[in-house]
Amino acid sequence: MTSAPRAIGVDVGGTAVKAGVVDAGGTLTERRDLPTPREPDALVAAVATLVRDLRRAAGADLPVGVAVPGIVDDDAGTVALSANLGWRDVPVRDLLAAALAEPVAVGHDVRAGALAESRWGAGADAMLFVPIGTGIAAALVLDGRPWGTGFAGEIGHVLVTDPDGGPDLPLERVASAAALARRCAAGGEVTDGAREVFRRLADRDPRARTVVADALDRLADVLAGAVCLLGPVRIVIGGGLAGAGEDLLGPLRERLAERLVLGNVPEVVPAALGPWAGCMGAAALALPHPDGGVQ
Amino acid sequence: MTSAPRAIGVDVGGTAVKAGVVDAGGTLTERRDLPTPREPDALVAAVATLVRDLRRAAGADLPVGVAVPGIVDDDAGTVALSANLGWRDVPVRDLLAAALAEPVAVGHDVRAGALAESRWGAGADAMLFVPIGTGIAAALVLDGRPWGTGFAGEIGHVLVTDPDGGPDLPLERVASAAALARRCAAGGEVTDGAREVFRRLADRDPRARTVVADALDRLADVLAGAVCLLGPVRIVIGGGLAGAGEDLLGPLRERLAERLVLGNVPEVVPAALGPWAGCMGAAALALPHPDGGVQ
Repeated sequence: MTSAPRAIGVDVGGTAVKAGVVDAGGTLTERRDLPTPREPDALVAAVATLVRDLRRAAGADLPVGVAVPGIVDDDAGTVALSANLGWRDVPVRDLLAAALAEPVAVGHDVRAGALAESRWGAGADAMLFVPIGTGIAAALVLDGRPWGTGFAGEIGHVLVTDPDGGPDLPLERVASAAALARRCAAGGEVTDGAREVFRRLADRDPRARTVVADALDRLADVLAGAVCLLGPVRIVIGGGLAGAGEDLLGPLRERLAERLVLGNVPEVVPAALGPWAGCMGAAALALPHPDGGVQ
Repeated sequence: MTSAPRAIGVDVGGTAVKAGVVDAGGTLTERRDLPTPREPDALVAAVATLVRDLRRAAGADLPVGVAVPGIVDDDAGTVALSANLGWRDVPVRDLLAAALAEPVAVGHDVRAGALAESRWGAGADAMLFVPIGTGIAAALVLDGRPWGTGFAGEIGHVLVTDPDGGPDLPLERVASAAALARRCAAGGEVTDGAREVFRRLADRDPRARTVVADALDRLADVLAGAVCLLGPVRIVIGGGLAGAGEDLLGPLRERLAERLVLGNVPEVVPAALGPWAGCMGAAALALPHPDGGVQ
């Protein structure tokens, strides 16, 4: 009897590296996290140490998948640019393979999170994952596999009208959690992030209502454009802002229905896996695909 | 020795049915066209007659692919809705299979055209095909295969700002060839379609310049949104408006570069195959895929 497939997932974030062991059913065990080393060599050494530790804990030489942020060439396994890590043209897959003396699956963090949501979370075989936090990104899953490379998913950079009357500006400067907090603070009182904005919204604070309405209008514009292109694939909202729940999703659904008059309104659901989705998706990159083959 | 694979392609358009024999190298021979019968039964009978005629001419029982317009369920082979044909919920694949007493490949006309451009024309393995004529549609090719079904590709229905100050309206009401002609005519003189608009543009007619600039601004907005989502995949502009050539594509490229500041500007090229792309793509649906397997 062979045991069920398992893999080690490592999610390299801007502040923390999250790692664990994930099985084919999506169960995550042996969680580890540590502050992200900034230098590629130090990071690779830290990941190699985590992998050895997790293999010891798992009692097996499990395969390894690693998710990295930034502009990632998924095919080449390189990070072209990561503002969070301060990296440019880092061949992270080759560095990891050299450190571990074996091939390692490397992918983009958002596309890995989308894969995890698709397979084990709120997703579907065709879906658009949209994490909204300090920025806004997106990742497509098509036929159960993450799609795209490089600049794919940069919907936070779609230009939208400035609610304050200035020149058009990137979506994430109006609709990210960080933008909500900043725009609410511009009304006078400083806010403690997007959570505070939604608390004020519940209290019918007029500035919070305006700021959230502006954000949702523009987010709906951009998502409606994606839906017209892709058809009504399920939209999975993740990141910090998903914590706002129906206060965010209800009005977003209404705005999408106003914009999608052909009858092509998609389901809009919150992400199910939370901040460990990237780690789980990294492991999924190294697990056999349910339809056969690796990713 | 076996001969190179060939297939019969049939493109059911709103006004004409175009059919021919296409080989794996993309050579189209034995072209036939006839006015489109409006009733599904009459259309199916006409297609069956065309197929028998083409098989006789080709001297072989070639496989058959058929492209149909409207909201097409590519998986089920049904036309959910076609305004051009006046159809609703027509199981065209089953009807054709019954008439020909064999399986028939059925797909959406724009996705079929995109497949043909990808394989034999101006395209690439990952590309966005955007025919602009009486309406505006789009079709994605990913990994060399058309992607999407149903409402996918309806970018003509993305809401954009009305250049005349009214409520937001669908992109194709500002940027289709038909819209250009109509808006130009609203300035006084009636125009003879989009060709006349571009002739006036070359003569520096102010109304034509405004109308074309409005159209390109909004087309660029919608395409930039798609590029942010997909990454800089090649954009292939087809349909009647592609005949305007660099008068259209040059200013469109400039506008995309203004909107895509990450360095994610795609190539924008005119379609190469012209009005028989749908017929060729229909045949491609029935030909072996170059990477193995059928579509």
